[in-house]
Amino acid sequence: MKACGVIVEYNPFHNGHLYHVQKAKELSNANCMIAIMSGSFLQRGEPAIIDKFHRTKAALASGIDLVIELPYAYAVQSSAFFASGAVRSLHHLGVSSICFGSESGNIDQFVQGIVFLRQHEALFDQKIRQFLKEGYSFPKASSMAYEAIGLNDINLIQPNNILGFSYVKSIMEDNLPMKAMTIKRVQNDYHDEAISNKIASATSIRKEVMAYGISDKIMNALPKASLHQFEQYKRKATLWHHWEQYFPFLLYKVMTMNAAELAKIHGVDEGLEHRLKKTATNALSFHDWIEKIKTKRYTQVRIQRAFVHLLTNTTKKAMKQFLHAKEIPYIRLLGMNEIGQAYLNERKKVLEIPLITNLNRNTSELLQIDERATNAYYSILPAKQRVMLRRQEFQLPIII
Amino acid sequence: MKACGVIVEYNPFHNGHLYHVQKAKELSNANCMIAIMSGSFLQRGEPAIIDKFHRTKAALASGIDLVIELPYAYAVQSSAFFASGAVRSLHHLGVSSICFGSESGNIDQFVQGIVFLRQHEALFDQKIRQFLKEGYSFPKASSMAYEAIGLNDINLIQPNNILGFSYVKSIMEDNLPMKAMTIKRVQNDYHDEAISNKIASATSIRKEVMAYGISDKIMNALPKASLHQFEQYKRKATLWHHWEQYFPFLLYKVMTMNAAELAKIHGVDEGLEHRLKKTATNALSFHDWIEKIKTKRYTQVRIQRAFVHLLTNTTKKAMKQFLHAKEIPYIRLLGMNEIGQAYLNERKKVLEIPLITNLNRNTSELLQIDERATNAYYSILPAKQRVMLRRQEFQLPIII
Repeated sequence: MKACGVIVEYNPFHNGHLYHVQKAKELSNANCMIAIMSGSFLQRGEPAIIDKFHRTKAALASGIDLVIELPYAYAVQSSAFFASGAVRSLHHLGVSSICFGSESGNIDQFVQGIVFLRQHEALFDQKIRQFLKEGYSFPKASSMAYEAIGLNDINLIQPNNILGFSYVKSIMEDNLPMKAMTIKRVQNDYHDEAISNKIASATSIRKEVMAYGISDKIMNALPKASLHQFEQYKRKATLWHHWEQYFPFLLYKVMTMNAAELAKIHGVDEGLEHRLKKTATNALSFHDWIEKIKTKRYTQVRIQRAFVHLLTNTTKKAMKQFLHAKEIPYIRLLGMNEIGQAYLNERKKVLEIPLITNLNRNTSELLQIDERATNAYYSILPAKQRVMLRRQEFQLPIII
Repeated sequence: MKACGVIVEYNPFHNGHLYHVQKAKELSNANCMIAIMSGSFLQRGEPAIIDKFHRTKAALASGIDLVIELPYAYAVQSSAFFASGAVRSLHHLGVSSICFGSESGNIDQFVQGIVFLRQHEALFDQKIRQFLKEGYSFPKASSMAYEAIGLNDINLIQPNNILGFSYVKSIMEDNLPMKAMTIKRVQNDYHDEAISNKIASATSIRKEVMAYGISDKIMNALPKASLHQFEQYKRKATLWHHWEQYFPFLLYKVMTMNAAELAKIHGVDEGLEHRLKKTATNALSFHDWIEKIKTKRYTQVRIQRAFVHLLTNTTKKAMKQFLHAKEIPYIRLLGMNEIGQAYLNERKKVLEIPLITNLNRNTSELLQIDERATNAYYSILPAKQRVMLRRQEFQLPIII
């Protein structure tokens, strides 16, 4: 069997994702589509709007055959770590290709860009250090350094180009035997908040649903199966997840920790601990707090990631084990259909790392980071709902 | 001037407290009544129903001339530490007597009891160790050991006798130049939950008000000035404080900490960390959780105290500084009237330890424990209310 991998968050699964899966299957000529999906918290430092289990069901009903979870330690990270964790996991599952959406839509631009970068690596490193020293954030310093070395063919300010660049770089650096493919994203920018047709960005969908609930626009933007899971989750959990709901917990934590304790949290660097303490006393909401912390150096995404690590109690020490590990520690299976099952049976024999089906098989110390993340994720729910939904972690993978 | 000290929680200030202040003033013949009052969290491991500032105002309107705060590190402790912190603080303020309410009402029983205990100390120590080994809680083992050595004159199961015994013991051990006096508590036991007349227990008042709000019974049980502060606080904070409101925070914390991290918290001893982890996953409310944790060894009060330390992030390490310190680190002034002010002016010149008037003068590292406690205490409030009420900590003491 031949598999194609996609790297996703499905926050939530919408018509753009459906188009992506169908196109990827067509282009790759694969008979098994594997999604590696972030769990409770996402790359830009946000809680997922519904939990990973309901997102898994939506994916399996929409063209994906096998869903595995990207461990928290890679999922809530800058693009380089995120990409490396995702690509290497997919490699362990033996995919022959990956396919990602990008603003560019031209895979040659990515490959040539990376070759060019290699040729100018010394200058790039020098430039990025210089811009960081000048107080720019890492993403800003990176894109300025790309420009400074003359890497112009591909726009590395656009978020999906950045991610795609990291995927291709990861494949090339590790010499992985998989083909990279890209599809041009259809209409609407990632940050576009207006829903005007069937293809809407996940950001605009979340914004719409938080303000108006399941409106006509939402019904138009989600495939039927995804809409069903989206509504199901709300019925079970009583809410869709949003940063503001976690604000009291975050604030409580910062108000009861000293700066030295805060500095032990992954992502709390360069004096951010003092800025957190200083701004906390008058913060009136999550949004208000972020506005009070933000500077040129501390971007919103960087602060949000630090907040996720704080919320999940993820220390620098715990994260080090993951990030310094040579190898992906495990594959966590979330769900599959018959095709996925058949593929996995074939693949199991040669799998070099543990296959985790639920947290009862929690043999890896590193999996505890994911368990804590889930616990933090559900902590905003009423007690009964929390107990019930958390049990999903200890059940067998979803099979449809 | 001559001062008499009372050791109080005023949770809330009721007619029994009013009677106590009046009687103490009469018996002591003092012209200044000083109350040392617990702050945000109380001896039995509970949040105070309204904050310390509004309780201070109620006290100052009801016969107390000067209110100081018992530091958190002594306030949320077993009776021996609690008593030692309170009595020594009052000694620094030069009180010539203290007066406490007790079930016994006979000061000779206390003094003779302590003399008797000294004579049988070796046997007492042996007995208490034996009962602890058999799995009894510390309070139970203590009362059994008293019985075993033949200390029968005073009933040391009754909570106010236990506290009084500790006060007198503390005075006698340190040879402090102050007279101990006691008043027999009028009607209704400490644990009595039925309000039948003007003198009702604080426990029954809290229970009544949480169930029915300001009922006729509440109006009957609180002096007018205390009732006013009680209603004022609710108007400002939107709520009266209760453990159940802190349940989501506590649970969130346990669900995102591992056993080793929990064991660093003061009061989490003898494997309690594992019991907390095990029971947390299915706990549906604070009450339900306590029921799931409780054993012969882990009494409700002991668990509640550990929960307070967990909520306020008070580690064994931080607490050690306090408890091993030879001396009380500071006197924190909460409020006073003209008499209190005059007394303090007289006393200031000979005061051997710092007088703290607000947290801006936070020179002591140990005061940070109290600041964290206040932060945790207000964390359940809506944002604006939290910001506003917390500011009281940085204002000058209340002067009426």
